[in-house]
Amino acid sequence: MSLINRVYVENVGAHVGEEVELRGWLYNKRSSGKIRFLLMRDGTGIVQGVMVKGSVPDEVFERFDALTQESAFGLKGKVRKEDRAPGGYELEVSDVVIYSIAHEYPIAPKEHGVEFLADRRHLWLRSSRQHAIMRVRHRIIKAIRDFFDERGFTLLDSPILTPAACEGTTTLFETEYFDLGKAYLTQSGQLYAEAGAMAFGKVYCFGPTFRAEKSKTRRHLSEFWMVEPEVAFADLNDDMDLAEEFLEYIVQSVLRDRERELKVLERNTTFLQNVKCPLPRITYDEAVEILKRKGVAFEWGNDFGGTDETIISEQFDRPVMVHRYPAQVKAFYMKRDPENPNLALAVDVLAPEGYGEIIGGSQREDDLDTLIRRIQEHQLPQEAFEWYLDLRRYGTVPHAGFGLGIERTVAWICGLDHVRETIPFPRMIYRLTP
Amino acid sequence: MSLINRVYVENVGAHVGEEVELRGWLYNKRSSGKIRFLLMRDGTGIVQGVMVKGSVPDEVFERFDALTQESAFGLKGKVRKEDRAPGGYELEVSDVVIYSIAHEYPIAPKEHGVEFLADRRHLWLRSSRQHAIMRVRHRIIKAIRDFFDERGFTLLDSPILTPAACEGTTTLFETEYFDLGKAYLTQSGQLYAEAGAMAFGKVYCFGPTFRAEKSKTRRHLSEFWMVEPEVAFADLNDDMDLAEEFLEYIVQSVLRDRERELKVLERNTTFLQNVKCPLPRITYDEAVEILKRKGVAFEWGNDFGGTDETIISEQFDRPVMVHRYPAQVKAFYMKRDPENPNLALAVDVLAPEGYGEIIGGSQREDDLDTLIRRIQEHQLPQEAFEWYLDLRRYGTVPHAGFGLGIERTVAWICGLDHVRETIPFPRMIYRLTP
Repeated sequence: MSLINRVYVENVGAHVGEEVELRGWLYNKRSSGKIRFLLMRDGTGIVQGVMVKGSVPDEVFERFDALTQESAFGLKGKVRKEDRAPGGYELEVSDVVIYSIAHEYPIAPKEHGVEFLADRRHLWLRSSRQHAIMRVRHRIIKAIRDFFDERGFTLLDSPILTPAACEGTTTLFETEYFDLGKAYLTQSGQLYAEAGAMAFGKVYCFGPTFRAEKSKTRRHLSEFWMVEPEVAFADLNDDMDLAEEFLEYIVQSVLRDRERELKVLERNTTFLQNVKCPLPRITYDEAVEILKRKGVAFEWGNDFGGTDETIISEQFDRPVMVHRYPAQVKAFYMKRDPENPNLALAVDVLAPEGYGEIIGGSQREDDLDTLIRRIQEHQLPQEAFEWYLDLRRYGTVPHAGFGLGIERTVAWICGLDHVRETIPFPRMIYRLTP
Repeated sequence: MSLINRVYVENVGAHVGEEVELRGWLYNKRSSGKIRFLLMRDGTGIVQGVMVKGSVPDEVFERFDALTQESAFGLKGKVRKEDRAPGGYELEVSDVVIYSIAHEYPIAPKEHGVEFLADRRHLWLRSSRQHAIMRVRHRIIKAIRDFFDERGFTLLDSPILTPAACEGTTTLFETEYFDLGKAYLTQSGQLYAEAGAMAFGKVYCFGPTFRAEKSKTRRHLSEFWMVEPEVAFADLNDDMDLAEEFLEYIVQSVLRDRERELKVLERNTTFLQNVKCPLPRITYDEAVEILKRKGVAFEWGNDFGGTDETIISEQFDRPVMVHRYPAQVKAFYMKRDPENPNLALAVDVLAPEGYGEIIGGSQREDDLDTLIRRIQEHQLPQEAFEWYLDLRRYGTVPHAGFGLGIERTVAWICGLDHVRETIPFPRMIYRLTP
């Protein structure tokens, strides 16, 4: 049978009354008198096969005994509606084909420690919870690409290997690059996306980024994926308009198409349903006021820490946009507020329920002389930025963009404690395997 | 005006008779008597603005003189159909707004050397030819994701930083990984995709891959993107069925939606139009026969070189699938042909017109003991593969997959001589900038 026309568990409901053939792995089995139940997972869902002694040849009936957890097998049988079965359908089994008998499976339904499971990530991914997370992750990524594609953005992949160690090398992974010296794994594609915006008007880059940060928090991975849109002829307000429409699109797509997975994850979706435009917008100053009202000893001019972000975001029932930060805590390329040059035209979007920053963005400095002065003030090597300065020499325009971290977004939408479950094979300070 | 509702050149035809506002960069200008023509590129297309002396205030009319190539400006005016104008429409200009005047632009319409242009890649991307290539690249990537998403595949991103240097370190980029020793930049996500196929049935991974090969050919990049589907319960024939349907989908999507870009590239699309199922399938033995008939001194058992591939593919008017290679030239994880254990159940797809291999795939060895023996025969460290061997211990099934290199596919579809123009910021043995 052609691969493409094959029946999978997720569409078994379209074949009620028909004889189908399914292939998958043993998720569980049980017997009750003369009846045998085989629960098969095939990667798209779980379905129950039912055999009654005498209704199939004895040698088929006996294969029930041979099948161990995760053994691979095929089931033939007629589909019938059965509300009590997982998924709502079951198979009246006419044949069982064994592909392979699994060794004793190391992951039992009982609780394992996280390190035990993480060491077996290649198997752990089969469990219903991890399965649900990865399907939500996929849906988020698809929503991101669809959002930009539908709006005329051009995808412009930024390079992973980059030449300059712009902001110190302590959080960069480095590698020897032929005879050209050292190359560094990218932390952000933004500067390249800016070149793209001047060529295509609206672009996005979307790929893995790296941070060799010695952090062990539940929000840090050393390898994570980031999407970064950049738009020519756009200011901070345009940037915030884009960000809120984007978040609404992502969250509503997941709520619509991954209801089953969010149920598996026991996610309370109240706050997710609230993610609709407009999102609240407050200034940094207003955010500091919130902290003070809550009794936090916070000094104006600092950046918010994780706890600060949690306290601020707890005041809202949906993501909140905090804009106009003190320039001193933000990057050199951010444009200053013409009404107060101590402020950068930056915006961070904080997720509710303590999930912290999921988007960071800004309007970019578009004046050549000002940008050169900033590079000097930050004691960065101007030579490494000459190509970037060219974007201000040849047709500079107001422009803005932001970055959204995929894993933090997955953690938030799935309601997870730790980002390590948000990516198929996580990389952290103490983990490089499997 | 909201970013999202803004009018761009590509949809100006929907606004005939209306006053619109466009923003972009000066592509060219010319005057004829009392008439001034301003050609604006905005990243989505090129449109002509027309001013007649007296029809606009003098200070607006004079802005024509100030605008240099790549200066940023806005145009207001009424859209009218004009078959002689580029794109078929023009703007009856009522106002010109200058955003910035560009310094003298280094890329003139005259011919530049490739190194000169590559050094200015951030500007070169604005030229109509590079612009067209990137828009085709984007469409290819979208087609790839749509193809798999529509067919129920789950996206499973494989890691970039990997622990084991499985097949020698000479073509690997390495980096220090905290206190865990060295990490290596991935050359393929396949082994991880195999874990995914056992969890999800059908998966694909799609990301950058790396090869520190000291090659200077027109087909090599040190950083390139690859998509790798993997399917459980699939054999070599299923793999070839999937590959041919996939290629048809990609090529026909580009032909349908990027006609204008292929014209800019002066691409003869005859061979592309032929990319429809079924594609020819020949064995390695038959391919060797072709070489011999053409007088090539080729010894059975070797792998094909670039010239061999060109000669073989020239016999066909569409991509050709070559299957069942001598096992000695293929990777350890490929399953042997049960009818001839000297052959691997491998397939390479060769693009026509001398573009060489664009897909490499195989059915995988699914027997635990055989796979362990292969690892030993290839003198690979078994310990590094224990997690991979687990996939054969716990529910092993026949499975197959392939990898498609994005940049070679872009080069082929666009008809380019060199892969360096197929990616926004190419990385090669002698190039790490900009």
